[in-house]
Amino acid sequence: MTPRRTIPPLARGVLEKDRRALARLMTLVENHESAAEASMAAIYPHAGKAHVIGITGPLGVGKSSLISALLGHLRSKGRTVGIVAVDPSSPFSGGSVLGDRIRLDRAPGDNGVFIRSMASRGHAGGIAETTREVVRLLDAFGMDVILVETVGSGQVDVEIRDIASTSLVVVVPHLGDEVQSLKAGLFEIADVFCVNKGDLPGADGAARYLSEMVSLGTDRDGWRPRVVSASATAAQGISELWEALEAHERFLDEKKLRAGSERVRLGRELVELVRERVGDQLAQKIDDDPQLDRLLAQLQARTIDPHAAADRLFRAFRPET
Amino acid sequence: MTPRRTIPPLARGVLEKDRRALARLMTLVENHESAAEASMAAIYPHAGKAHVIGITGPLGVGKSSLISALLGHLRSKGRTVGIVAVDPSSPFSGGSVLGDRIRLDRAPGDNGVFIRSMASRGHAGGIAETTREVVRLLDAFGMDVILVETVGSGQVDVEIRDIASTSLVVVVPHLGDEVQSLKAGLFEIADVFCVNKGDLPGADGAARYLSEMVSLGTDRDGWRPRVVSASATAAQGISELWEALEAHERFLDEKKLRAGSERVRLGRELVELVRERVGDQLAQKIDDDPQLDRLLAQLQARTIDPHAAADRLFRAFRPET
Repeated sequence: MTPRRTIPPLARGVLEKDRRALARLMTLVENHESAAEASMAAIYPHAGKAHVIGITGPLGVGKSSLISALLGHLRSKGRTVGIVAVDPSSPFSGGSVLGDRIRLDRAPGDNGVFIRSMASRGHAGGIAETTREVVRLLDAFGMDVILVETVGSGQVDVEIRDIASTSLVVVVPHLGDEVQSLKAGLFEIADVFCVNKGDLPGADGAARYLSEMVSLGTDRDGWRPRVVSASATAAQGISELWEALEAHERFLDEKKLRAGSERVRLGRELVELVRERVGDQLAQKIDDDPQLDRLLAQLQARTIDPHAAADRLFRAFRPET
Repeated sequence: MTPRRTIPPLARGVLEKDRRALARLMTLVENHESAAEASMAAIYPHAGKAHVIGITGPLGVGKSSLISALLGHLRSKGRTVGIVAVDPSSPFSGGSVLGDRIRLDRAPGDNGVFIRSMASRGHAGGIAETTREVVRLLDAFGMDVILVETVGSGQVDVEIRDIASTSLVVVVPHLGDEVQSLKAGLFEIADVFCVNKGDLPGADGAARYLSEMVSLGTDRDGWRPRVVSASATAAQGISELWEALEAHERFLDEKKLRAGSERVRLGRELVELVRERVGDQLAQKIDDDPQLDRLLAQLQARTIDPHAAADRLFRAFRPET
């Protein structure tokens, strides 16, 4: 065990379910303030209990409405819910690019819900790391379920599988564009598919088509992705959707796959954090280290190419702490 | 100088303006094939001459139509043009999320144009690096101007200023959402603003508003961003837009800022490439290194937190080549 140190006040606040402490610590994390570090360390042992679900899919498929519907369903069952919106077009993040701003069915003063949208500026990589920490905070805060909404494009910084144990991919009946998106990687990450707007014509066909694709695909550790039709606006299929998501969690437990997948996620996080430290050290040196200065001069003179220069710099790298 | 080695056939093809060699090498680069490395090294000394312009802005502002119009203008002046679409919703990348697929005004068989869309799967970070290399290939191929289209969200992997020497930010007259986007970082990166659809009501107001914001802001090295109204569909303002973009390039040359900004870009690239090598080495070790295994076990037991673990791993890091 880590030595019992004094728990920083903000971390203590989060563990005691103080929403303001939670929000403030999230802000510190988002701004990469060093003041957050001790609190995040103190909080880490208390995280790891929540059911973290990544929700992704192309623009305009109604991810946010579906999240609202899931939220209502979960609250009616007494489950507490954290929502993290990484999608810049999400109404949760205050975006309204597609004009589909929705009303959030959350009773005023309901302490069983906490919604956080990620600032979308951040540098590449930064968002994945920050999202992971925000999810960890909601987890330590005691939320039973955490829904992480991302836009389903390979371009997104957040590789949702690095954060969530279950991935839900949302599509709409008209599959033209979606097939393209599925090809682009969504198919491989889905544990559950939801054909949203299931009351529209073509929904049955889309669900059948997806089920066929799934049955043609290979299992992942013995899990065959489920396909559920739902209509967030008509409040149809929501409990079936939740059942499918829970079934995947049960599957992870029954097959004892949870520890293995957590190890993979923590390993990726660790590698990323070390990469960051290396980058920070080099970025600090770039203005005053004579060796780096020479290398950059050679690059500008085009007498060395970037990969050869990187190989040289990598070989010479020694951590400074 | 690097020793004169045999130039790989694909690289030679690119330098001899063979379009098929160019396309094939781009594919190798996108797939991270090691076969691309020697060619990219051979090509590097021949790049660095093109005028690289990043074009960004929120979804639906008509970036692609504007690029088409700029392309027509540049071709009419005899300039050769490369186009790289990183935006997944771009018609150039075959996407049609917003249904605004456009007709590209390119004469069949015009060898002065080469268009490449980036596969949007790729992992975070991967796209920025690949885009940089694709731009470099178009540059070495001899394109005078290279237009790089990205979606204007901070979420995008590509930090356009790391690739382009001039950044164009496109907005539309109705500024509601755009103001939000501008706050989110677009304002700081713009060398030139284009109010597109300048024939729509509100365009003058938007341009005036932007000009005011610009005049309130601080110069960057003495450059005050230009604001241009244009209508891609009505083919208005395109030559004025091009003049503004060229003015920024002239400014860089006159103030001798080009070398400095190139050095910053190359430095960032170098740091990123070294980070990649560190990540690769650690990722390879994660399955068989006993020290890493112990660290991951402690992380899972929550007796150490990720940042403390990363500090320990970082301090122990030694490059292996």
